[in-house]
Amino acid sequence: MAAVVALDSLIAALPPGMVVTDPDILAAYRQDRAQDPDAGTPLALIRPTTTEQVQTAVRWCAENRVPMITRGAGTSLSGGSTAVDGAVTISTEKMRELTIDTATRTAVVQPGLFNAEVKAAAAAHDLWYPPDPSSFEICSIGGNVATNAGGLCCVKYGVTTDYVLGLQVVLADGRAVRVGGKQLKDSAGLPLTKLFVGSEGLLGIITEVTLRLLPPQAPACTVVGSFASVTDASEAVLAITSKIRPAMLEFMDSVSINAVEDMLRMGLDRQAGALLVAQSDAPGPAGAAEVAIIRQAFEAHGAADVFDTDDPQEGEAFTAARRAAIPAVEKIGSLLLEDVGVPLPQLPALIGGVADIAADNDVMISVIAHAGDGNTHPLIVFDPDNADEAARAQVAFGQIMDLAISLGGTITGEHGVGRLKKAWLPNQVGPDVMELTALIKNALDPQGLLNPGVIL
Amino acid sequence: MAAVVALDSLIAALPPGMVVTDPDILAAYRQDRAQDPDAGTPLALIRPTTTEQVQTAVRWCAENRVPMITRGAGTSLSGGSTAVDGAVTISTEKMRELTIDTATRTAVVQPGLFNAEVKAAAAAHDLWYPPDPSSFEICSIGGNVATNAGGLCCVKYGVTTDYVLGLQVVLADGRAVRVGGKQLKDSAGLPLTKLFVGSEGLLGIITEVTLRLLPPQAPACTVVGSFASVTDASEAVLAITSKIRPAMLEFMDSVSINAVEDMLRMGLDRQAGALLVAQSDAPGPAGAAEVAIIRQAFEAHGAADVFDTDDPQEGEAFTAARRAAIPAVEKIGSLLLEDVGVPLPQLPALIGGVADIAADNDVMISVIAHAGDGNTHPLIVFDPDNADEAARAQVAFGQIMDLAISLGGTITGEHGVGRLKKAWLPNQVGPDVMELTALIKNALDPQGLLNPGVIL
Repeated sequence: MAAVVALDSLIAALPPGMVVTDPDILAAYRQDRAQDPDAGTPLALIRPTTTEQVQTAVRWCAENRVPMITRGAGTSLSGGSTAVDGAVTISTEKMRELTIDTATRTAVVQPGLFNAEVKAAAAAHDLWYPPDPSSFEICSIGGNVATNAGGLCCVKYGVTTDYVLGLQVVLADGRAVRVGGKQLKDSAGLPLTKLFVGSEGLLGIITEVTLRLLPPQAPACTVVGSFASVTDASEAVLAITSKIRPAMLEFMDSVSINAVEDMLRMGLDRQAGALLVAQSDAPGPAGAAEVAIIRQAFEAHGAADVFDTDDPQEGEAFTAARRAAIPAVEKIGSLLLEDVGVPLPQLPALIGGVADIAADNDVMISVIAHAGDGNTHPLIVFDPDNADEAARAQVAFGQIMDLAISLGGTITGEHGVGRLKKAWLPNQVGPDVMELTALIKNALDPQGLLNPGVIL
Repeated sequence: MAAVVALDSLIAALPPGMVVTDPDILAAYRQDRAQDPDAGTPLALIRPTTTEQVQTAVRWCAENRVPMITRGAGTSLSGGSTAVDGAVTISTEKMRELTIDTATRTAVVQPGLFNAEVKAAAAAHDLWYPPDPSSFEICSIGGNVATNAGGLCCVKYGVTTDYVLGLQVVLADGRAVRVGGKQLKDSAGLPLTKLFVGSEGLLGIITEVTLRLLPPQAPACTVVGSFASVTDASEAVLAITSKIRPAMLEFMDSVSINAVEDMLRMGLDRQAGALLVAQSDAPGPAGAAEVAIIRQAFEAHGAADVFDTDDPQEGEAFTAARRAAIPAVEKIGSLLLEDVGVPLPQLPALIGGVADIAADNDVMISVIAHAGDGNTHPLIVFDPDNADEAARAQVAFGQIMDLAISLGGTITGEHGVGRLKKAWLPNQVGPDVMELTALIKNALDPQGLLNPGVIL
């Protein structure tokens, strides 16, 4: 009964209706897009709008030793916001304020805004927020910061951490701190801003983000090529990245090409073994030179039908095709979505190795990739009603991470470890780094209440 | 006597001659470029060449509770490597191995190499390491990583942390860990690589750095303008940065112009109140458009003799003039070198406020600045034999930091807090962030042996 009384005190401390205990609503907050079948049910759901309300909730949890799961838009692919029985889920979805400061070219945003909303607000002031996860229309900026999310433009423009200048964070004891600010350079004290970006909710709850914005991107030229094999395509990637930094360099294999073509009917080459979509946003003759380098690399590796366009809409159609790959392949079956990355020269070995793992386990694996930075998304397709196939998919999931580690790579390039990948993290980083991680976690959250079960 | 016996065991554990106790040599390792008059004398100097030797030294220090000062090239301007009585100084100057991997476009370097040597090694493979502190010919890459050093190109190309992909670090107990690696994207676990960059030796000793390299920079056009006043020049800066990201945007005031002209005799306008040196490295017509925007901003703010050149040598002469400003002004007197930064719109207020502080304290302060990112270096000139003037210089030093904090800025943009600035850090970041800093420090270095007196 103690827990119920305590929940009453939480309900009383926050505005009416902010603490949700309706089982029907709670059910919708059990899982995220990783759809963990072992997800628990939140003790309560809290949807604050201000930092102070987050502090109230965190103080209550700290006093009552109730774990907290921070949830953004619920689009985590690694189970970063999966509910835990007995834990409160704090959703940032109603924290949606945004201010653009054109003088400092920064955006100060609450975590609940979608990435696409930040982009749009910046664009309205002729500015640009580059990071662009494929899920940009439905993922929150808070989740982007928590996972150090990437996207398609990272190959040239970097990842979320490169754009975070400052944060407000509610610590495990309910104190709110500000780290960093609007200045572009700051060497004052430990780099705490950087420590929180990518910390997956283990060290605090991010309630405000100061983002650096850029002048608008120059119009891009898009080059598309169909290849006979994934090997040809991945070797073309290396030929390009050894010479230039393209603004985008995306890879789709045969399965994803056909799945997207089934969905969008845009005339992709169904016979191709792989497709590359590259962009250059270098202006004028420099852009023409980059397009020529890309075309040359495509043709040298046997690409048929190399096509280039400086029409932004035509180019966006191919980018949209690449972004549609995950939902398109999802129509074939349930997905286990991988996010492994390798140093670029190992890209052919990774893609080839994934094909071997698919064959060995008799499962379909479609590979799409942010090829230009070595970050791949093998999509393991399985029928959830076929227990044997689902088990083989799980085996393949682990083998792909083992492969990436053996190639000197990472088990996650941009999605985060969450709950789904934590069993593989020690193999990648080793016991000393795991201990270092635990030391920092324990120093900042000695009760272990923040996102328990993630990473550690 | 116990300490002497213990030192014998250290000497025995390392190669002959690696542990130095010669007082004449130790004397040269007391101070760094901050020339702290209160510097101690090292108990011993250790100049290892390998990570294993660093581990041996750190284990000995941990067992004997002897503090350790990590020293790179000794160019810290904030006393980051000032010796402490009774502490061992570990110099990385002999850790000078370097490997360039053109396939991943990375450099794996030991910390003792100079920044310029890394740049040169990259250039030999037609690659580019951007960060360029003014001291790049004499500062070490390890020190750059420890302070998250910046430079002139940061306004467009970012600071050291943006180029660090991986590290090997010897922890306070002597264990060596690897964090990050050669992959461009990595969201696996807490962002420990980022935590160590800029941690000023408080959390471990960096023994190897994996750096990201870029394709070579395109040839830059340089635009130079002389302004009647510092206000005109700083407003021209805002006019430029509101439209484009220049590749360089440097500021010199009248004192520094004349000091450089005394030294280099290159024909700078001695009557000017301020000089701006800007660069665009955008290729072709885009570069011409940027040069036009810069020229227009210069002329709109009354610049006389606006000069532009696409001749790299001519451009480099002006960059060299800006880099020469500190040694040139140093010929006038001893310097207290500031490193304050503000959000860009506050730049005129900062530069104006520094002039007021100079007048109030009757000291000469010359301001040079990486103006494009709001990071300024007020140089407080004083005669060390004039105790009253030296005292007034110290007062001005603190007042400039107070001013930067009041303008929402930072006490250090790129030099680090070291020992000289730590008294002001709590005013910038507040008590909660100081406590957070101490929590992390204590978790990783519970005996407090790594660089004691820095930051905390």
